[in-house]
Amino acid sequence: MIDEERVRGALEGVRHPESGRSIMELGMVKDVSVEGGKVRFTLALPFLDVPVRDQLARDAKEAVEGLEGVEGVEVDVREMTQRERVHFFSVQEGATPEGRANDIRHVVAVMSGKGGVGKSLVSGLLALALREKGFEVGLLDADITGPSIPKMFFRRPKRPEGSHDGILPVESGRGIKIMSINLLLEREDEAVIWRGPLISSAIKQFWRDVLWGRLDYLVVDLPPGTSDASLTVMQAVPLSGVVLVTSPQELAGMVVRKAARMARRMGAPMLGLVENMSYAVCPKCGAKIEIFGPSRAEEISRAFGIPLLGRIPLDPRISELCDSGSIEEYPLERFAPIAEVLVRRASD
Amino acid sequence: MIDEERVRGALEGVRHPESGRSIMELGMVKDVSVEGGKVRFTLALPFLDVPVRDQLARDAKEAVEGLEGVEGVEVDVREMTQRERVHFFSVQEGATPEGRANDIRHVVAVMSGKGGVGKSLVSGLLALALREKGFEVGLLDADITGPSIPKMFFRRPKRPEGSHDGILPVESGRGIKIMSINLLLEREDEAVIWRGPLISSAIKQFWRDVLWGRLDYLVVDLPPGTSDASLTVMQAVPLSGVVLVTSPQELAGMVVRKAARMARRMGAPMLGLVENMSYAVCPKCGAKIEIFGPSRAEEISRAFGIPLLGRIPLDPRISELCDSGSIEEYPLERFAPIAEVLVRRASD
Repeated sequence: MIDEERVRGALEGVRHPESGRSIMELGMVKDVSVEGGKVRFTLALPFLDVPVRDQLARDAKEAVEGLEGVEGVEVDVREMTQRERVHFFSVQEGATPEGRANDIRHVVAVMSGKGGVGKSLVSGLLALALREKGFEVGLLDADITGPSIPKMFFRRPKRPEGSHDGILPVESGRGIKIMSINLLLEREDEAVIWRGPLISSAIKQFWRDVLWGRLDYLVVDLPPGTSDASLTVMQAVPLSGVVLVTSPQELAGMVVRKAARMARRMGAPMLGLVENMSYAVCPKCGAKIEIFGPSRAEEISRAFGIPLLGRIPLDPRISELCDSGSIEEYPLERFAPIAEVLVRRASD
Repeated sequence: MIDEERVRGALEGVRHPESGRSIMELGMVKDVSVEGGKVRFTLALPFLDVPVRDQLARDAKEAVEGLEGVEGVEVDVREMTQRERVHFFSVQEGATPEGRANDIRHVVAVMSGKGGVGKSLVSGLLALALREKGFEVGLLDADITGPSIPKMFFRRPKRPEGSHDGILPVESGRGIKIMSINLLLEREDEAVIWRGPLISSAIKQFWRDVLWGRLDYLVVDLPPGTSDASLTVMQAVPLSGVVLVTSPQELAGMVVRKAARMARRMGAPMLGLVENMSYAVCPKCGAKIEIFGPSRAEEISRAFGIPLLGRIPLDPRISELCDSGSIEEYPLERFAPIAEVLVRRASD
């Protein structure tokens, strides 16, 4: 007679074509049930949209069909939860999950597609707002060729210390753990002239080889574009969700919609939209000036069915604080409600 | 007796390790002279900073030393002129220079390193200003994942037409020839989720397989960052020079300095610096507001020894024109002097 144990044993022999590891070890097999000669199980994929999907389902099905006493096999396919994904990726990358020093509960990526709309500002303020709420927070600067995070947080950044277990992130004044390529360069304006594979491997190292320790939230500041860096983060890091940043210009909106489509295609949940540079206030007469035109944030958030988390004005004081490494002095009232919603949604 | 002809013959056999083509055919050998048994010639390299430099010089030297009657060989190394580079790259890529329909006199890349500082705006206005002066102008949008050019120039862009010789660029109202990935997509907000090699090959196709025809100037709008797209443009396109764009924020300045270092390392001449978003004017009271803080453009231009070409204010009208595909209606007075200087410098 066929039983669950024998089904599991057969599936143990099915290997993921990319890593060569067993789909059982990778945690891809769920809900095995046997009724008479009928076998049913679920194949959980890190993302639904992976090229190996059909092959894996076929391999798994055939492995079970080969067992004596099996009369029919039904395979359901679903996407992994965030926790399942963490397990999948750490096994796939060869890290031993039990031996890992890092224990990161939620990873939130800040994305835009377009440059210069304030991703780094939103990443920084989000990290700060979460820290203010008493969480352990990390900030990973995934913009390898145009990193902004260290400049915003430090007057004179310390160099990250290394141990034989990995690199230690640098702590900000308020205790946010930060890692950025610019912390590792001799000069802050040194150019990093790297093609995609190097960019990707740097990001993977920042995720895997940095000793983040126990974090409630890791905020990832993505570079503009929908190429290597964003792809690597979405494929290799188990994201709880993505925060999109836009500016009122329709031109920016178009590029942000590209980013949203990418996030959707990669199966990364979208937590919400922040509009930056929404308006400026004239310091002389108090007039509200819509420098980049009227807001289109409502429109974008409706189109993608995601909440508009907030609108941040253009404020010379922000530039000043960012330029002098004092972003931690920025008054957070305007940002606290944004963090509030994010915490709620990321914890869902 | 040794003579120039035999030297040239020996050098014909020396091949460039990357393309396998003869250094004679590539136009790398200049000024061959023979005095008695002493041979002297110049090896012209597309960029001085290429990894094969020493190997090539050694191979060339040894090839001549092997000739009977040669008592000494001296090799001078220098960088190619722009015209020599055009020849080098078209031969290296296997294009037959004589059969090429394209005849492009000057290629100017607009670069920043940082996103959202207005590279596309500067590229567009520069192309326009050159067109106004009566030149034949093309505009190549090298930002594959976040293209802005079509949106700025067209309400409803036409699709590029193809012929068996290649793709025809789309002409703007004022006759600027434009090519961008967004002209080839079904939807303008479709995401282009490509890793570096695909990005690079798209850019090479835009350069090589687009039927630009005879152009006085081709303006190339580079994406942010110092990775694949910028590298490919700097390696595969014979640039007359680079225009750097910055905004007043020191944070932007830092990233722009990275871009400048890259341009310098790649041997691309820097034509000058444009500061965008320098200030806003309150429409109510006329106050000049330095939204991103005081200008640092003078500082950057001094540090790199390049002229400050101009400062463009933040102007809601610009956003409006860019969003509605009407950038060609923007009054060019403020931009004409910038174009003037560029034309002078690019023609040097």
